Amino acid sequence: MSQFRQVTIIGLGLIGGSLGLALRRRRVARRVYGVARRAATVAHARRIGAVDRGFTALAPAVAEADLVVIATPPSTVVPLAQQVAEATTQSLILTDAASTKAGIVRGWQRVLPERIAAVGSHPMAGSDRSGLGAASAELFTGTLCVLTPTAQTPARAVRAVGAFWRAVGMRTTTLAPERHDAVVAMISHVPHLAAAGLVSAAASAELKVAAAGFADTTRVALGDPALWQDICLSNREAVLDALGRFERALVHLRQAIAYRDAPELRKTLAASRRARRRLCR
Amino acid sequence: MSQFRQVTIIGLGLIGGSLGLALRRRRVARRVYGVARRAATVAHARRIGAVDRGFTALAPAVAEADLVVIATPPSTVVPLAQQVAEATTQSLILTDAASTKAGIVRGWQRVLPERIAAVGSHPMAGSDRSGLGAASAELFTGTLCVLTPTAQTPARAVRAVGAFWRAVGMRTTTLAPERHDAVVAMISHVPHLAAAGLVSAAASAELKVAAAGFADTTRVALGDPALWQDICLSNREAVLDALGRFERALVHLRQAIAYRDAPELRKTLAASRRARRRLCR
Repeated sequence: MSQFRQVTIIGLGLIGGSLGLALRRRRVARRVYGVARRAATVAHARRIGAVDRGFTALAPAVAEADLVVIATPPSTVVPLAQQVAEATTQSLILTDAASTKAGIVRGWQRVLPERIAAVGSHPMAGSDRSGLGAASAELFTGTLCVLTPTAQTPARAVRAVGAFWRAVGMRTTTLAPERHDAVVAMISHVPHLAAAGLVSAAASAELKVAAAGFADTTRVALGDPALWQDICLSNREAVLDALGRFERALVHLRQAIAYRDAPELRKTLAASRRARRRLCR
Repeated sequence: MSQFRQVTIIGLGLIGGSLGLALRRRRVARRVYGVARRAATVAHARRIGAVDRGFTALAPAVAEADLVVIATPPSTVVPLAQQVAEATTQSLILTDAASTKAGIVRGWQRVLPERIAAVGSHPMAGSDRSGLGAASAELFTGTLCVLTPTAQTPARAVRAVGAFWRAVGMRTTTLAPERHDAVVAMISHVPHLAAAGLVSAAASAELKVAAAGFADTTRVALGDPALWQDICLSNREAVLDALGRFERALVHLRQAIAYRDAPELRKTLAASRRARRRLCR
């Protein structure tokens, strides 16, 4: 099922590398090209079979692409899309894999010519490990990809990008870019800050006694600090808003404890358990 | 290796049931007796082989015990210990499995006669499931048990209780009761509140998009609300103190985001990752 002649992936980290492996294994594209800044990364991607051809320069990698996927940190996605526009003359579809969407989608509208149909994507697959060394052809299997088209996005491009992510094993759904950012602030970015805050508040003597529960609760704090700094700052307003909601929930719990309000504490914990039970374990 | 003639477990939930299974499988005691309030629980414990004999009344279960383990929520441990004292005349060792220690150890000093040598224990094994149905003979294997003796605790009893938990597969360490409570407030009770707070702050529409990271971070919120209410209130001061430390760590992260202080945000996330990496995954 070869929807695309040439897919070019810009950025060969955990997501870009895994995408290359998945595309080649599932024969989603006839050719998979990859771009990374470092020659060693390109060689690594070639060696593990994540790309058919690898490049350290963007222009030759995208010159004949009909789909370009930018799999780099949020703040770099718009500048790279602009470079794709400058290096190409053909019509093509462009998407990305960044964890925040509103700023990127607005930026694209500013810099991209009409021949480039851009659709925001957030494949919600990941790992507490990062980099090409952690890449896996099955990273995306069974997980959710959120597409964030706007009223201006060509419907044909939205369909093609949706089919693309489904072809590597994902489920897809659609949210407006701003709504996407508010949702992931609450269910991904703030939990990351909570995990980092828990580890940072604990002294190392205390961490020595930590058990499986603490390891679970703080696992996401293993994520790449540079990437997460970029995610939090590129979603600043939504993160501050969601963090405020979380802080208010903590104050509610703190007051129930401070006032020895056992029924209220129990009620709140029970409501949280019910909501949590609706998720997978 | 039969250290004890008769071990009586009071409370046949996840911990008490798992302990019975482990003791019988590993032949740590010649007889394992169990007490539960409900006859159905006693029958269940018998059926799965968690006890040799089960009781709904405490007195006959402890009359000939040389070790009594109270595996019930924190606030019930001292009253039950007092009932053990009233139902027995022999010398015996008493311990517990509650997640908080200072109040229990102080309470024992108030209510127990000298013939009962009481040693606080916190086997840090658990599961996001609760109750006898989740019991496992291997629940304790490779996990840590914290003993909290005081200057008044007979050394012989501390040694026996340490050997007892090691016999079911645990590692043991010793902390003063107050120090134990401060440590678990930070690495167990506050993470539980954080998980509950995250779930409670998220709307159900947002939870539908939640991925593996959110599931990890909030897994402990699946714990029994009645038990966790009791734990938090029985460790109220230490929990409020640790919660304050966590809230200050969140404020630090929030300010770095609000002021767009990328270097500070990255530095804090990197320090958290380094500390988290020292734990198991």
